[in-house]
Amino acid sequence: MLRLLRYGMMGLWWFGLVLAVQAQEVRQEIRFPDLPGYRTLVCDFHMHTVFSDGSVWPPIRAKEAWRQGVHVIAITDHIEYQPHKDDLPTKHNRPYELLTGESASRDILLIRGAEITRDTPPGHFNALFLKDAAALDQPDLMEVFRRAIEQGAFLFWNHPGWQGPEKGKWGDVQTALYEKKWLHGIEICNGESYYEEAHGWALEKNLTMVGNTDIHEPDLKKQNTAADHRTCTLVFAKEKTLPAVEEALRAGRTLVWYKDQLIGREEWLRPMFDASVEVLPPHLRVKNAVFVHIRNRSEVNIQLERTGGSGPAKLVLPAGTVSLVKIGAADPTKPIQLEYTAVNFLVAPKKALTVTLTIPGKE
Amino acid sequence: MLRLLRYGMMGLWWFGLVLAVQAQEVRQEIRFPDLPGYRTLVCDFHMHTVFSDGSVWPPIRAKEAWRQGVHVIAITDHIEYQPHKDDLPTKHNRPYELLTGESASRDILLIRGAEITRDTPPGHFNALFLKDAAALDQPDLMEVFRRAIEQGAFLFWNHPGWQGPEKGKWGDVQTALYEKKWLHGIEICNGESYYEEAHGWALEKNLTMVGNTDIHEPDLKKQNTAADHRTCTLVFAKEKTLPAVEEALRAGRTLVWYKDQLIGREEWLRPMFDASVEVLPPHLRVKNAVFVHIRNRSEVNIQLERTGGSGPAKLVLPAGTVSLVKIGAADPTKPIQLEYTAVNFLVAPKKALTVTLTIPGKE
Amino acid sequence: MLRLLRYGMMGLWWFGLVLAVQAQEVRQEIRFPDLPGYRTLVCDFHMHTVFSDGSVWPPIRAKEAWRQGVHVIAITDHIEYQPHKDDLPTKHNRPYELLTGESASRDILLIRGAEITRDTPPGHFNALFLKDAAALDQPDLMEVFRRAIEQGAFLFWNHPGWQGPEKGKWGDVQTALYEKKWLHGIEICNGESYYEEAHGWALEKNLTMVGNTDIHEPDLKKQNTAADHRTCTLVFAKEKTLPAVEEALRAGRTLVWYKDQLIGREEWLRPMFDASVEVLPPHLRVKNAVFVHIRNRSEVNIQLERTGGSGPAKLVLPAGTVSLVKIGAADPTKPIQLEYTAVNFLVAPKKALTVTLTIPGKE
Amino acid sequence: MLRLLRYGMMGLWWFGLVLAVQAQEVRQEIRFPDLPGYRTLVCDFHMHTVFSDGSVWPPIRAKEAWRQGVHVIAITDHIEYQPHKDDLPTKHNRPYELLTGESASRDILLIRGAEITRDTPPGHFNALFLKDAAALDQPDLMEVFRRAIEQGAFLFWNHPGWQGPEKGKWGDVQTALYEKKWLHGIEICNGESYYEEAHGWALEKNLTMVGNTDIHEPDLKKQNTAADHRTCTLVFAKEKTLPAVEEALRAGRTLVWYKDQLIGREEWLRPMFDASVEVLPPHLRVKNAVFVHIRNRSEVNIQLERTGGSGPAKLVLPAGTVSLVKIGAADPTKPIQLEYTAVNFLVAPKKALTVTLTIPGKE
Repeated sequence: MLRLLRYGMMGLWWFGLVLAVQAQEVRQEIRFPDLPGYRTLVCDFHMHTVFSDGSVWPPIRAKEAWRQGVHVIAITDHIEYQPHKDDLPTKHNRPYELLTGESASRDILLIRGAEITRDTPPGHFNALFLKDAAALDQPDLMEVFRRAIEQGAFLFWNHPGWQGPEKGKWGDVQTALYEKKWLHGIEICNGESYYEEAHGWALEKNLTMVGNTDIHEPDLKKQNTAADHRTCTLVFAKEKTLPAVEEALRAGRTLVWYKDQLIGREEWLRPMFDASVEVLPPHLRVKNAVFVHIRNRSEVNIQLERTGGSGPAKLVLPAGTVSLVKIGAADPTKPIQLEYTAVNFLVAPKKALTVTLTIPGKE
Repeated sequence: MLRLLRYGMMGLWWFGLVLAVQAQEVRQEIRFPDLPGYRTLVCDFHMHTVFSDGSVWPPIRAKEAWRQGVHVIAITDHIEYQPHKDDLPTKHNRPYELLTGESASRDILLIRGAEITRDTPPGHFNALFLKDAAALDQPDLMEVFRRAIEQGAFLFWNHPGWQGPEKGKWGDVQTALYEKKWLHGIEICNGESYYEEAHGWALEKNLTMVGNTDIHEPDLKKQNTAADHRTCTLVFAKEKTLPAVEEALRAGRTLVWYKDQLIGREEWLRPMFDASVEVLPPHLRVKNAVFVHIRNRSEVNIQLERTGGSGPAKLVLPAGTVSLVKIGAADPTKPIQLEYTAVNFLVAPKKALTVTLTIPGKE
Repeated sequence: MLRLLRYGMMGLWWFGLVLAVQAQEVRQEIRFPDLPGYRTLVCDFHMHTVFSDGSVWPPIRAKEAWRQGVHVIAITDHIEYQPHKDDLPTKHNRPYELLTGESASRDILLIRGAEITRDTPPGHFNALFLKDAAALDQPDLMEVFRRAIEQGAFLFWNHPGWQGPEKGKWGDVQTALYEKKWLHGIEICNGESYYEEAHGWALEKNLTMVGNTDIHEPDLKKQNTAADHRTCTLVFAKEKTLPAVEEALRAGRTLVWYKDQLIGREEWLRPMFDASVEVLPPHLRVKNAVFVHIRNRSEVNIQLERTGGSGPAKLVLPAGTVSLVKIGAADPTKPIQLEYTAVNFLVAPKKALTVTLTIPGKE
Repeated sequence: MLRLLRYGMMGLWWFGLVLAVQAQEVRQEIRFPDLPGYRTLVCDFHMHTVFSDGSVWPPIRAKEAWRQGVHVIAITDHIEYQPHKDDLPTKHNRPYELLTGESASRDILLIRGAEITRDTPPGHFNALFLKDAAALDQPDLMEVFRRAIEQGAFLFWNHPGWQGPEKGKWGDVQTALYEKKWLHGIEICNGESYYEEAHGWALEKNLTMVGNTDIHEPDLKKQNTAADHRTCTLVFAKEKTLPAVEEALRAGRTLVWYKDQLIGREEWLRPMFDASVEVLPPHLRVKNAVFVHIRNRSEVNIQLERTGGSGPAKLVLPAGTVSLVKIGAADPTKPIQLEYTAVNFLVAPKKALTVTLTIPGKE
């Protein structure tokens, strides 16, 4: 049957775009707490459609994102690579245009972007917040960057280690962009990959860290969980608007959610840990121990290893649960400090966040 | 190996009881919102152990309850039926005693109870908040009730329709108890069963409605979800203490969570619905429609059927999700009233709660 | 990054087509037993791509089918309805061509088809086993059918009751096709719908029953299970080849797997039941009963209701499991006949298959 | 209510034992293929009940085993450790007696065993196939062993490294037993633990390798899967009878299923691999490659690492699935040998099975 007819009375016109929303659809929210002063937005800044080498019609990207609880997406088809163009002639702005209706009806913030796609080195770069993606279809690479920046683009280097650490080196083009202040961010994670060297460059050169799916095929996940989720970027924005997302990206207020890890600057990892983990006061004090409940409000199974003298050697706080922990204490009426390393909160390559959990004493 | 040794340093003494808590265990909370002025406590007032005809050692009941997010349990072994007594001699107060340590370490409120077990009619009755269960081991039934009430028991009639509606009739014993004001509640749900006639008696005679597992075997569930959960009672208590639970039971502030339904007095179903369902303001108004998100904070997949003129004919709001709904509106800037029946919120036999959802207009 | 490059050495040319198979992918097989003399093939004869009103690039349909254990697919984009044609110019044979490589690499049998799409009545029709789909792009409807038949097409009427029983009536066009022997089959199930009246027509007019997804969007399912599977057709073919599938379709050897039901002629439902259900000999005979295990080899949760004097009133044999059943028997050494109705094996509208299970006696 | 009454007509007497089987229950079979000449039986030779330090009434152990597809269990309560004895007086043969009915009704083979429980060293030992467990309640340890052997016991050393490698050393008692030929087996895996040193002793001293749960609490698993299953022993028996299980144990025909590994002698690991993995003939040969499907019939996610020149560097064949694999081949018409290590098939400590998969050439 015809999809349009199938939805019957649901097909409405809005700024000339058909919104094919069914009567009701269901979304699973992603549970990361907001930070003091900021709203936590789940963002994916890198994805493809049939208009370059992806395999879905553009609105599917908004449906997938919405269903999974993602708040912000950027559509970034390749400028230079259009393997379907014999069937589907190149139109650099069409994927964005075809996505606006579906995004609006689902309250997804949609960023017009493009992937500048050259042999490695120098590799690929995403330009976000474009006004006209077609303007980037130019033979001269530095001219492409110039036109992107001219439009106010936020520019990041994609999957630096994709073709191996040898090919994915920081090169002349990166240096040129960096010196012109045209390079603003770097993908430290892309899909299934984490680029440790790029993580170091991000810290050293003060680039905003992002992690994205770079998805080409349909996304089968119904929701994002610790065991199976999109690689994505948590952005700490003043509000849920595109200007606020851009401001936060330029200010570097991001964490990357990659596999069962959070990666980013300690400046943002620490408040995320503090907002996620709550130690409840002891509900039972016995001769040599106290019993406490510890809640984890995040989507990460937080893994802790003891560095101090109190508490179990290891603790795993599964995402969205409460753990019961028995803590030995010579005097169970006194406050207890638990010193741990949060091994899957990564503040630098091979370096995890150190944390202290405090158990209050008896009043 | 020995269980005690296995837990190594975790074995501690508390009031003479061994607490065999492992270093860390995980609990899934049950998401029903609190009501204004009351805390929502998940309670199960009917369960068995090896000390009558159950098949677990008592502390297992606290572990199961804790793991599943239950807050309050009553241990109610049969007084008159002890099929294991040749191996395990009758001791009516032992199951409670053996459970106190495990309950305390997990912050589970534990009620000393017993099941008064006679042929039907009159059937079985649970007495909660006992001081000495052994005092109920008496041949004369009314004397048993007298001794329970003397101890301050809250008494309810169990599984009224268990052996069929003919056997499970309201009889002389029920009338005698009711007239003495010794009968305070009634199980309208027990395990897999709902007793419609008993539901009517509860309303007619103002008895507190309870629903319980009556569990005998180990409970395999890791958590309680809409698709698979214990039959249990939501109690709206002033705080999480045993006296507050008792006060709420005597005041009739309960709902029964049975399969994918909530059953109880409209007085408590309505605030539960209101606390569970949040209609967010429209994020998009188009020519003939508005798009809204509706959040369901409860563990029930709320099923709505339209009774008024606006909104989809049916809506299902899955537990713990956000739904996207498109609502036709001649003037999308004006407020909209959605009239529905919440078919799985049961205020009386075969009668569901009517609700109104309001979508705010454009300011 | 580029999808093609990502797969690296995996990109190979075959008859001019790129096969983008990753190093390894995983398939869940669908467990329906073969029937005596026939192989059971899982088939979906109705699906769309971006080339009409679908939202995926064609090869995705082979990937989805393969992953879910489907053996045969027909690609059937609309001839007359191309909502994306301003971006993607009409090419009726391209979806098939773009799918051949992906299907071959996964050993999926691919049928070139098309959906003839007119207002209802008469509605939509699928033509399978075409040689040139473009030949059907004709204004005159009977001429379209003639050209399909001329190419050797197998023709079936799609979703007869789609726009309501009033619109989906058997009409003049159906009669004309039927009298010319041009109408060979009928969709009694399409996606979430079952058309009871069409089921009756299929029996009355000896049309082959088919059930299909009519899928437009990406299919999110990783595998097909009783709880969530594609609506599809089981074809009993002499071998796994396209000519054998066509021969079976023309001979009417099909069943429709719809929700947790199998629907079709008793001639094929009965051997499917017999091949699926195995009653093992009693492993224990006691005074008044025998204990048997019953295996269900199919993907349906077989629901049985007793019509005779022995066995439990209801039995549910979950898909792919073994059930333990205790059967009362005055003399447990004698054979026992269990008379049941298999309520989700539908031989006609509202009529289920009657079955007898035999428990052997003691030798 | 009373459990006995609840099951109504289902309560029957069999050799004086009540069989409380419900009308119907469901079992998930465990998919390990049989080996040539032998039936593969899933066995658990170590478990506890309330009669020592466990927390379930004995019949629960048969229900758990049956539900999960286990074929053989041994009940092995501690002889010397009875923490519940003040409530439940010691009766060494009662757990076995209370389990016979439930095991018979479910066709579970039940072994009468006991755990001989002394401080480490020497530690704990299980004696299987006892006639009278009470005879082992003796102060002198060697006398206990003598009485077990006199009854025809199969004896194995339990969890050798339980209290650390220092305490769990091969000691004088082990040497004495071994020299008398009284020690027949050794637990190389127990619950969550694998004892690498014990694995070496098993090979060196030709002891039968066993793996068991040593379960004390209720088992929550509904079925055994690669991700979550009991630690257990696969026994290759001539038939499903207790004498055949004993013969196989004495002949050392076992493998241990521990986490996502199979551990045992190459003599049994190799035929298990061969019976589990089937390489289907290529369904497509292209210029430089062939496409094959590989089926894994076992419950292990088989992990392969390439050691030869052909095939992907790594392959994971998930349990119970078919994988599509593309294999580069200069001449795709010729047979191909794939040389791999099956990293989770352990033939000795830190040593995995090497395997060759053969892809047939074109005829």
